[in-house]
Amino acid sequence: MIKTVLIGFGNVGFHIAKSCKAADEIELLQIYNRSEVEANLQKEINVAFTTDFNLLQEADVYIIAVKDDAIEKVVKQIPFTNKIVAHTSGSLHLLNTHQNDAVFYPLQTFTKNKSLNYKVIPFCLEAENEETYAVIEKMAKSISPKVYSISTAQRQELHLSAVFVCNFVNHLYAIGEEICKSHQIPFEILEALIEETANKIKSLNPVEAQTGPALRQDQKTINRHLDQLKKTNYTDIYQQLSNSIAKKHGNQL
Amino acid sequence: MIKTVLIGFGNVGFHIAKSCKAADEIELLQIYNRSEVEANLQKEINVAFTTDFNLLQEADVYIIAVKDDAIEKVVKQIPFTNKIVAHTSGSLHLLNTHQNDAVFYPLQTFTKNKSLNYKVIPFCLEAENEETYAVIEKMAKSISPKVYSISTAQRQELHLSAVFVCNFVNHLYAIGEEICKSHQIPFEILEALIEETANKIKSLNPVEAQTGPALRQDQKTINRHLDQLKKTNYTDIYQQLSNSIAKKHGNQL
Repeated sequence: MIKTVLIGFGNVGFHIAKSCKAADEIELLQIYNRSEVEANLQKEINVAFTTDFNLLQEADVYIIAVKDDAIEKVVKQIPFTNKIVAHTSGSLHLLNTHQNDAVFYPLQTFTKNKSLNYKVIPFCLEAENEETYAVIEKMAKSISPKVYSISTAQRQELHLSAVFVCNFVNHLYAIGEEICKSHQIPFEILEALIEETANKIKSLNPVEAQTGPALRQDQKTINRHLDQLKKTNYTDIYQQLSNSIAKKHGNQL
Repeated sequence: MIKTVLIGFGNVGFHIAKSCKAADEIELLQIYNRSEVEANLQKEINVAFTTDFNLLQEADVYIIAVKDDAIEKVVKQIPFTNKIVAHTSGSLHLLNTHQNDAVFYPLQTFTKNKSLNYKVIPFCLEAENEETYAVIEKMAKSISPKVYSISTAQRQELHLSAVFVCNFVNHLYAIGEEICKSHQIPFEILEALIEETANKIKSLNPVEAQTGPALRQDQKTINRHLDQLKKTNYTDIYQQLSNSIAKKHGNQL
């Protein structure tokens, strides 16, 4: 069992804790969080919690799941040396500490009160040496079979892609919901469409899967939509994404 | 059995044909298409095809699945009166013909070579009189339990929402794929994230489900991403969607 301490208990930390608890090869000893964690969450995870770095337990691996800006400061407070210290950021380089530095990046969207199937999450790993890589690979593989060796440069591009296919996509869902709501239409009517749109790209690539007025260069429908959007903040987004679709398919609106 | 003729065999027509063939209450007599349909597709549907309006068979219902601009012209060529004529457009009003006009709008993204579960597709219906509505409702219900009475105004808003949650979302997938490809990263790494993003909004509303740098007002990451995007066409889209996320959540970047 790989003795592990988790530092940070936000959305990412919560799900790393849950996935570590479920993994055969990982013994989650303790979770540090800078503020007291609610009792019901502590109960759900069922592991020792602390808010005091002086009480940090000795472990093989420290997983850092705090905001990018706070990572360096947090790592300096680990009162042990020669440990594996793995951050979970999509953006940052390998750390340069006196520990064995690593990256343990789960590519998923995490929200505390939304359960997840950890077995499908891809883990993108990087380490400063082979021994360290072997340990975090063993950890990741005991959570999910989808484990990838990914350089910092590639991870940064993956993170950027994830902003498009997850954060921005979710915002488009939010716009769709806003439009439905303001016209007394149940948003659930769009559920099958949303699911199929995501599902479709498993068998077609997104360029083949594209449909809609911008692809068809159906300017009449586009103009009607822009007219419908007049009272919202979304005409620019509509225009820009439509132009971008047309451009990607070698057309111009 | 409701005797039905389908006019138009593009992406929508193909799937309407397949779903009608599978429905207990519908007898699909014939499909008209302005050009000859490939033999293998004809064989797949296994129904009489024609390219000649003079050979159109008499039926209870004519479903029109052609481009919006062509609908009126097509309807005029139906050589029978007092029939139900239902268009499948998300945008157009009820027709004003001398037939019994209706709307039979399946809210889904259709591509010929992508199979679909018709039982989850919502059908948005409208008709000029109750008798007509009863017939198309019976048809729709024999395909899917998700049948909604939707006015033209609501349907137009649904169609607009669908552009955001489907066509634009798919384009963001295409951008994600482009970024991955140009950095030798397999796009499949993003599959679980794409699926979870779509899945998440079944239990959380999209505003609660939002994550990412724009929500966190993480300007450092945003700037890094804009820098990574410099050589692409996508900086404006990134900027605009990030600003829109911030605005929707009461912030400003």
